[in-house]
Amino acid sequence: MTEQPTTANQMWGGRFAAGPDAIMEAINASIGFDRRLYAQDIRGSRAHAAMLAAQGIISTSDAEAIGEGLLTVLSEIEVGEFPFSTALEDIHMNVESRLKEIVGEPAGRLHTARSRNDQVATDFRLWVRDQCDAAIAGLDALIRVALSQAERGADWVMPGFTHLQTAQPVTWGHHMMAYVEMFGRDLSRFRDARKRMNESPLGAAALAGTGFPIDREATARALGFDRPMANSLDAVSDRDFALEFLSSAAICAVHLSRLAEELVIWSSAQFRFVTMSDRFSTGSSIMPQKKNPDAAELIRAKIGRILGAAVALFVVMKGLPLAYSKDMQEDKEQVFDAADNLMLALAAMEGMLSDLTANRERLEAAAGSGFSTATDLADWLVREAGLPFRDAHHVTGALVALAEKAGIDLPELTLAQMQSVHPAITADVYNVLGVHNSVASRMSYGGTAPQQVRAQIARWKQKLEEKSA
Amino acid sequence: MTEQPTTANQMWGGRFAAGPDAIMEAINASIGFDRRLYAQDIRGSRAHAAMLAAQGIISTSDAEAIGEGLLTVLSEIEVGEFPFSTALEDIHMNVESRLKEIVGEPAGRLHTARSRNDQVATDFRLWVRDQCDAAIAGLDALIRVALSQAERGADWVMPGFTHLQTAQPVTWGHHMMAYVEMFGRDLSRFRDARKRMNESPLGAAALAGTGFPIDREATARALGFDRPMANSLDAVSDRDFALEFLSSAAICAVHLSRLAEELVIWSSAQFRFVTMSDRFSTGSSIMPQKKNPDAAELIRAKIGRILGAAVALFVVMKGLPLAYSKDMQEDKEQVFDAADNLMLALAAMEGMLSDLTANRERLEAAAGSGFSTATDLADWLVREAGLPFRDAHHVTGALVALAEKAGIDLPELTLAQMQSVHPAITADVYNVLGVHNSVASRMSYGGTAPQQVRAQIARWKQKLEEKSA
Amino acid sequence: MTEQPTTANQMWGGRFAAGPDAIMEAINASIGFDRRLYAQDIRGSRAHAAMLAAQGIISTSDAEAIGEGLLTVLSEIEVGEFPFSTALEDIHMNVESRLKEIVGEPAGRLHTARSRNDQVATDFRLWVRDQCDAAIAGLDALIRVALSQAERGADWVMPGFTHLQTAQPVTWGHHMMAYVEMFGRDLSRFRDARKRMNESPLGAAALAGTGFPIDREATARALGFDRPMANSLDAVSDRDFALEFLSSAAICAVHLSRLAEELVIWSSAQFRFVTMSDRFSTGSSIMPQKKNPDAAELIRAKIGRILGAAVALFVVMKGLPLAYSKDMQEDKEQVFDAADNLMLALAAMEGMLSDLTANRERLEAAAGSGFSTATDLADWLVREAGLPFRDAHHVTGALVALAEKAGIDLPELTLAQMQSVHPAITADVYNVLGVHNSVASRMSYGGTAPQQVRAQIARWKQKLEEKSA
Amino acid sequence: MTEQPTTANQMWGGRFAAGPDAIMEAINASIGFDRRLYAQDIRGSRAHAAMLAAQGIISTSDAEAIGEGLLTVLSEIEVGEFPFSTALEDIHMNVESRLKEIVGEPAGRLHTARSRNDQVATDFRLWVRDQCDAAIAGLDALIRVALSQAERGADWVMPGFTHLQTAQPVTWGHHMMAYVEMFGRDLSRFRDARKRMNESPLGAAALAGTGFPIDREATARALGFDRPMANSLDAVSDRDFALEFLSSAAICAVHLSRLAEELVIWSSAQFRFVTMSDRFSTGSSIMPQKKNPDAAELIRAKIGRILGAAVALFVVMKGLPLAYSKDMQEDKEQVFDAADNLMLALAAMEGMLSDLTANRERLEAAAGSGFSTATDLADWLVREAGLPFRDAHHVTGALVALAEKAGIDLPELTLAQMQSVHPAITADVYNVLGVHNSVASRMSYGGTAPQQVRAQIARWKQKLEEKSA
Repeated sequence: MTEQPTTANQMWGGRFAAGPDAIMEAINASIGFDRRLYAQDIRGSRAHAAMLAAQGIISTSDAEAIGEGLLTVLSEIEVGEFPFSTALEDIHMNVESRLKEIVGEPAGRLHTARSRNDQVATDFRLWVRDQCDAAIAGLDALIRVALSQAERGADWVMPGFTHLQTAQPVTWGHHMMAYVEMFGRDLSRFRDARKRMNESPLGAAALAGTGFPIDREATARALGFDRPMANSLDAVSDRDFALEFLSSAAICAVHLSRLAEELVIWSSAQFRFVTMSDRFSTGSSIMPQKKNPDAAELIRAKIGRILGAAVALFVVMKGLPLAYSKDMQEDKEQVFDAADNLMLALAAMEGMLSDLTANRERLEAAAGSGFSTATDLADWLVREAGLPFRDAHHVTGALVALAEKAGIDLPELTLAQMQSVHPAITADVYNVLGVHNSVASRMSYGGTAPQQVRAQIARWKQKLEEKSA
Repeated sequence: MTEQPTTANQMWGGRFAAGPDAIMEAINASIGFDRRLYAQDIRGSRAHAAMLAAQGIISTSDAEAIGEGLLTVLSEIEVGEFPFSTALEDIHMNVESRLKEIVGEPAGRLHTARSRNDQVATDFRLWVRDQCDAAIAGLDALIRVALSQAERGADWVMPGFTHLQTAQPVTWGHHMMAYVEMFGRDLSRFRDARKRMNESPLGAAALAGTGFPIDREATARALGFDRPMANSLDAVSDRDFALEFLSSAAICAVHLSRLAEELVIWSSAQFRFVTMSDRFSTGSSIMPQKKNPDAAELIRAKIGRILGAAVALFVVMKGLPLAYSKDMQEDKEQVFDAADNLMLALAAMEGMLSDLTANRERLEAAAGSGFSTATDLADWLVREAGLPFRDAHHVTGALVALAEKAGIDLPELTLAQMQSVHPAITADVYNVLGVHNSVASRMSYGGTAPQQVRAQIARWKQKLEEKSA
Repeated sequence: MTEQPTTANQMWGGRFAAGPDAIMEAINASIGFDRRLYAQDIRGSRAHAAMLAAQGIISTSDAEAIGEGLLTVLSEIEVGEFPFSTALEDIHMNVESRLKEIVGEPAGRLHTARSRNDQVATDFRLWVRDQCDAAIAGLDALIRVALSQAERGADWVMPGFTHLQTAQPVTWGHHMMAYVEMFGRDLSRFRDARKRMNESPLGAAALAGTGFPIDREATARALGFDRPMANSLDAVSDRDFALEFLSSAAICAVHLSRLAEELVIWSSAQFRFVTMSDRFSTGSSIMPQKKNPDAAELIRAKIGRILGAAVALFVVMKGLPLAYSKDMQEDKEQVFDAADNLMLALAAMEGMLSDLTANRERLEAAAGSGFSTATDLADWLVREAGLPFRDAHHVTGALVALAEKAGIDLPELTLAQMQSVHPAITADVYNVLGVHNSVASRMSYGGTAPQQVRAQIARWKQKLEEKSA
Repeated sequence: MTEQPTTANQMWGGRFAAGPDAIMEAINASIGFDRRLYAQDIRGSRAHAAMLAAQGIISTSDAEAIGEGLLTVLSEIEVGEFPFSTALEDIHMNVESRLKEIVGEPAGRLHTARSRNDQVATDFRLWVRDQCDAAIAGLDALIRVALSQAERGADWVMPGFTHLQTAQPVTWGHHMMAYVEMFGRDLSRFRDARKRMNESPLGAAALAGTGFPIDREATARALGFDRPMANSLDAVSDRDFALEFLSSAAICAVHLSRLAEELVIWSSAQFRFVTMSDRFSTGSSIMPQKKNPDAAELIRAKIGRILGAAVALFVVMKGLPLAYSKDMQEDKEQVFDAADNLMLALAAMEGMLSDLTANRERLEAAAGSGFSTATDLADWLVREAGLPFRDAHHVTGALVALAEKAGIDLPELTLAQMQSVHPAITADVYNVLGVHNSVASRMSYGGTAPQQVRAQIARWKQKLEEKSA
């Protein structure tokens, strides 16, 4: 080994060799990340210019020049020909500076009755609103896939677990529908967040509003907002919309982590409840049977960075006096990363679940083991033999102990054996002991009976239709 | 110093001297904290028993005995005479065991078609729903106090800060109304959360539903829920309602921390913008003028434990397979602590803000310093002299430099001095340079003009009336 | 249902009915939790009084009266007869006030050259130092149990997993020793933290030091500190020791969560790798074979509240100006809760692991399935047949595919079949294909060969002896 | 506004248009970020190849070809000519694949007795170790700057605050030295972390060790590690080093946030305690006197993302079974981001503090206001007049009240006025009432007396010399 490791001081020195100015630029400039807001920034500026003209604050010809010029900038960025400059610090200055090169003097009128404070608040809010829409679309697609899985296996029995121990038989469809409910709540949470954030900060100016006769309703409308925000200080200091987006994303990521954990466990050689498609697993060059559930593991991990992003922004916002403080520049990267990873995890889960094969026989075999219908037996004793529930439990315990001692399962006990424990038992009891009988009997609303499961599938399908319509 | 410090091994040994059983009881029993759910537990059990009778699953006389017995238990707990037992592990077993002592055999029928899994889910959901209501009430009260402050000082000028540097004059009322907007969003967030969580898990039983002909609609209605939850696996595994409550509480706590930070800074000898009441500060026995803003500091800190509680529950729920896992027992203490502290912080902020005196003269004096109306001057140049905004900024910069060099503020420049920088300036410019003129001019919707502030106060008052009506 | 649910406004009003003073007391008083510091508080005061006398600042008789009086207070608290008062706000005032009742006027001299700021910093630091010792003792005990498990099964083969898929055979002892390494790092982390925090804040007074000729070295020594802290402002504002304790606790809790997760999975009917003792599981009254791994699940969850506590304190400390701010009163409850739960989790894991039975046959059967020795085959091809590693992998893949197609495992392929894939293979290859051969061959340092595992066990035993000696 | 906003479904569809394979690649490939490990990866591979040859596992000529080839790859990457490929997934495959192009067949022998699991663990550990060194260097530089500030103003008086209220006078030097202590602890924490992580995972192979006669001591030595890790399962599953780095970084970031908060407050027009240099503030084009403390605000915010990164990795690691799971791929981006931002914040704080001007007159004026020497008066009464401390406090309170009523400060009270409150007061008391007398008197170890401050500066200078030597 001859190469010399870099020393710490060289690294330290090297990284910031250019001195204080380089450090300040490194910590201060945001163009490295806020360029992602270009479309929102241009959309906001076009709405602003049009309004200024409509209110007679700038001339119509200036507004037209600005509007056209901004479209040019937009297409330059989209084709990758825009010369981003760190010296121009942020996306707003980059766009305005290029606009000036394109349209000249009118560019200088665009910033009338506006400030970077309300401009960035508008851009970022539009971006987060778009992410709510993307999350809603992603959840919609994922729910549809889960519904397909549920439909296919509405009556396939599998073990229902508590503590990862077999408790009672349920159906594959029922299990899938549990996730439909979770993702459905996520959907409604993103809808609420979108509605609450859908107010326009534009026109708040630096923090106090403006003396120009602007029309905030008009720009709000043009940008698809429901109304302008009602307090200009709040408009430039508020990041609730980002915090609420991140919180909703974190709850959704918890759901994804739970399903992912199940898929990892179910893919193990010991469970073999499911088989992943090759597309969403990775293999091993020497063990062809090995399918590592990489996608599931990565999805399981995503709650980490999404929750981390939420914590980061909560910490940044803690204790900030009004109105704008530069700390708030730390808001974007967290939301960008969380949103990207949420969308990716939703898409990956949708693909993985779509490709997934449930191993019906393995599921059914596992469902029937472990005295999983003991509760059915106890319930039969209450219902048919009139025992109080707590007594019925006691009798059932004795029967299970008898079966266990004999090395058999409950349905294999003879009637005589059963009656030796409690005389009120009749042959009718065998009707509740099989796993198929068990699940079919759980007819309470939301229960695991295939009929109930199918009813819920139907309800969800209709609900999705209504929303799309 | 002669006493011997306890050694680590003594401590370690001592603490768990009773051996494995003591350790298991210590880690497993929840009665130490879940006793707080007693009212919800009894309410749920009464609804369940009444429904069982209505459906003919138990007799009416049994249901009546149970119902009466539970009321006895309730009053025993409320007067502090209930003998809680750790051996009975949790609130559910404590209540049921005492019920059996009181009413005998019918008590054994209460648990028919129910499990501890759906029972605790119901209890906890009811408790969190109550906390949403408490948060809504607390926010309502706090908003009213902020409105009073805003009304009193709707036209008192003060510095509007960015980066804690004076930027433009605003009014005290406007600043207060920014917090009204924040707390208003908190209110709507708790309302959405309450609505989303308002579904009944009761009847999901252990995880699969039940074969008894129960009526989940009836118990849902009796407990004030909008409907039963639609999937029994989800019903016993879901803690979204707690996560959403904690997230909403954390956003609210961020708002409280921001206002608290401002109050701490404003109370310093250097600012003296406000005077706290004695009730919400602590004094010093030797410095009678000293008023430490203890309550404000403690409120500022509350985001810590509330966010910590949220993180804790997110981490607990990460990657849990369905349905119930014992990990979920860690949900309650976090929510209890966060809810208690949120309510306390809301009450303390309400009291503190209600007692607060804004020092009008200090605010006004600070508002006018630092060339705070430079933006007004620039806007005048755009509006009245037709300069492009970017040029107007340049001229204003030159005028401020002139004033600064002369050691005077902008309104003290002579017209000649002004015209030496730009000939288009007329005497009319002085109309925008005073802080009162400045704030009065910010007439854009949501701006700081007293007229705008009063309009927002009126809107909020009406809004609160409508909600209470 | 006839009882009326409490309305939100009643709750809200009721809780704080006594008005602002009750709210302020509720948010401000710390005696509800800081009473846990009584032993540390009294120890610190005794050291302080003795030093004051030694320096001639108070008389020896006063110091003796104080010292004796404090021992009386200590024993009153320990037997539960101490009258704690919320009006006296915190543990310091409670103790001093009682001391005055006991010894009269000298009590008033105890607080000379001291302030509550350095007093609480000293108390809390002593408490956290004790927790480091407790964690060290708990980890020591846990490591010894893991070593026993490792020793018993040093050569029991089991599957080594990656992605929860069988990768290569390892031994039970090797797996246990992986946790010994983790807990060993935790141990060293708590030792480092203890050493770093072991400096005395006492004598920093309010924040500036004192003009009295105190001897900070003497009190530091009396309290077991290595030295006094070197800056009085830092001494009263620093909570690094708590943050470092919480961070170390969180890393330890991650290790516990990983082992707990494995125990939960291994206890499932599908794995059955281990059997928990009855003492650390909970049963079901009707399914006697069911053993829910409650303790393991609760341990798995503890990282939630411990990480939450860490986040809480980080958030509280963020951005606090020097020196003392009341926000810092929020430090204790977080550390108390995290420490209690860490010690409980360590004790429960120690007990659970001590009682645990590994199912040797199940482990061995699982170890041999899934072509788990394919890597051994590839390595043999490199070592004995001279193939480059990447080529050897390719050949191995073909052999596994051949075996899989034939429905057999690798050792069941005939030599002829093997040679059909690559002619260089000889009968010697069968020596590496069995799981016992496989693990025995992994003789690299730290590898899974029983001989290596036993060497590590021996190394650890000696290490523990040296530390205890 | 005529342009059409992208619909959510277009976005959703568009982003993942290429279907499942594109999604899997997007979620699975790590080359986008792990390319930052190239230098560590190549260093590790060179050490591995050299050891393989030394042990006779590969030929010397192969090892030389590999070693040279890797240097070629290194220089290709450093000059930016390396063709990174996403299809090759990660940095390891990218390097090995290019190596094969360069040196041909020997490249296939490099991976003998190694796996990607121990390879990535080695690379990442080396990278984090470098970051510890960088943090240590950055802290060293920052401490030196703080020492300069402390030295310059060792006797400049300023208010010592508690609750942001003036409590007692301290010196600028003393305040600076408080941060030196904090950063000094950070330094020692990074040193401990570095030492604990400095063990080599290389040779652990996939998870079980290897049957090849490798020499793990040799590769450990070549890579600057103190020793090989002692358990191969632990070696590939451990990310403690990253968690400990992140925790230490978060504590350091808390310190930075506290100093940053003070600088922001001190820069306000109301405080004006300090003046920032232009280089580390941003101005306003129209308010030339305005200097926004942007750098300080951004530093204050960094604790957010660093704590967020720590939380993210803790969450990822929670509950992962041994040995490697793909979740762990989420470790790097968090550490990269946290390390980059910590180094940036340290450099920015160093630059900002170096350029900072403390406004000595403002500090002194503020120090003397608010009866800041009341404690000195009380202490005098104890020391010179023999009053018990609690009585002395009472007398002082009366004197302050007298002064406040008269609208004067304590030193302005006449001796007669003083004696009217307590007859034991003599003219000697005036010696302790001025702020300079006050600070000079705080001679206890670590106190604010300039002599004490200078002693601590000297101690630190020597300490830094010894470390560098």
